[in-house]
Amino acid sequence: MQLENIAQNKVHDGWHKRYRHAASSTQCPMTFAIYLPPQASKDTPVPVVYWLSGLTCTDENFMQKAGAFKRAAELGIAIVAPDTSPRGEDVADDKDYDLGQGAGFYVNATQAPWNKHYNMYDYVVNELPELIETHFPVTQQRALAGHSMGGHGALVIGLTASERYSSVSAFSPIANPIACPWGQKAFSAYLGGAEEDWYQYDAVRLLSRASDILPMRIDQGLSDPFLDEQLGIEKLERALAPFNHKATVHRHAGYDHSYFFISSFIDAHLTFHADYFNR
Amino acid sequence: MQLENIAQNKVHDGWHKRYRHAASSTQCPMTFAIYLPPQASKDTPVPVVYWLSGLTCTDENFMQKAGAFKRAAELGIAIVAPDTSPRGEDVADDKDYDLGQGAGFYVNATQAPWNKHYNMYDYVVNELPELIETHFPVTQQRALAGHSMGGHGALVIGLTASERYSSVSAFSPIANPIACPWGQKAFSAYLGGAEEDWYQYDAVRLLSRASDILPMRIDQGLSDPFLDEQLGIEKLERALAPFNHKATVHRHAGYDHSYFFISSFIDAHLTFHADYFNR
Repeated sequence: MQLENIAQNKVHDGWHKRYRHAASSTQCPMTFAIYLPPQASKDTPVPVVYWLSGLTCTDENFMQKAGAFKRAAELGIAIVAPDTSPRGEDVADDKDYDLGQGAGFYVNATQAPWNKHYNMYDYVVNELPELIETHFPVTQQRALAGHSMGGHGALVIGLTASERYSSVSAFSPIANPIACPWGQKAFSAYLGGAEEDWYQYDAVRLLSRASDILPMRIDQGLSDPFLDEQLGIEKLERALAPFNHKATVHRHAGYDHSYFFISSFIDAHLTFHADYFNR
Repeated sequence: MQLENIAQNKVHDGWHKRYRHAASSTQCPMTFAIYLPPQASKDTPVPVVYWLSGLTCTDENFMQKAGAFKRAAELGIAIVAPDTSPRGEDVADDKDYDLGQGAGFYVNATQAPWNKHYNMYDYVVNELPELIETHFPVTQQRALAGHSMGGHGALVIGLTASERYSSVSAFSPIANPIACPWGQKAFSAYLGGAEEDWYQYDAVRLLSRASDILPMRIDQGLSDPFLDEQLGIEKLERALAPFNHKATVHRHAGYDHSYFFISSFIDAHLTFHADYFNR
């Protein structure tokens, strides 16, 4: 199989489609979803927002729950949602929801048994965009967005492969994974015990070494139950301070960590990315 | 328990909340969800759209997938989503997805073992609105909307308890259940073998005896896999013909039976209901 279409649904005048393909970076079949707005055609290719989901998610959560298609159709933006890890019986896993399948953390694992398949950084940054740009009517304009673990992924990729993207946004990101339980558990397993090997995947740490950043928008709900222990929004805000002309952090009283929060502000994220696509 | 709040999420400046309560009509605890838009207060109560879901759904499907909150907040409309049947270990059930729990069909069952709990008609028409209007800042203005089995429920309730509602809308309704496999199976079980006992729950049949109807809007996807065997949109359209100044049927090429379809047109349904609330 090169690209197997496993589902499609018309939505807001465009198409939501799911595909499976054999991925070389993760050495297993991978599933992704794409929303193609009505404008997308060979003659009028559209830019792409890559959406990186959080722990336990697949390609389906965002597409079913974010309510993003109306605005994406208005703006003429495609959205691609990869899975959050390699999958399958042959792929290493863990009994916990925050390690293994559904919890790839967008890193290239170096430690057994994870290092055979868990190369989600390469998959998201290189293999998937190449596939998308070969098979669908899209431009090479790309933006990154994500939630929680996927917000971490969006920030880290936007800081380490910035030449490939025009803007980055995150909801409730795990901004400082080297200093929180979720990140420490995953990075210990995937990257080993040497903390210096984790730095390349920590947004706060990367920002402390950065000379410039892409335009960034971050939204955080203040009733998020993971806010204090896992997310590190205050450390992120401090790390972004030198770049505050290019980054905005929006705090929202009463909102939590769920897709109800994401759906409330996804239109603003898409509008943000469209602004940089159009420059 | 009178009304137990089991979850709440801020969304589009309003609140999605889930409750459990002991229901007298269904003789078991029932769960429902409500969206309260930001305008809702004791001083400014808001009208309510009751959303009736389809087979296998709970109160959660619409709230998570329909993308309705932005428009509901703009219009100042509350949305209430009941479960689709009584639930629990003591409640009769069936191994199939289209009978028993998750498949109440919005009827009052007359046949054992269903007749103890399966009184969803009474629950939706009387008990739930009374509860809602006692405990939440809403007016007594009500509209009905639903999908598939819930579209059937909305049409039937709108035709048999029309004095309680201002307008009705349906996505992909089971419009003629006495003449399709889903309806015949459920009605045989819940109502017994005498077809004349089914007529009160069949929208096409009720329309053939109606002298007037509420304003109605129906949307149907033309790539819906259930269109020919289960839904009966053409029979519905013929039955609505005498009332065509009050009813519109919208056919949509390419759309299927899923929430991707519902989310594409839910804004239009809410706008339709708001128009009649405001008269």
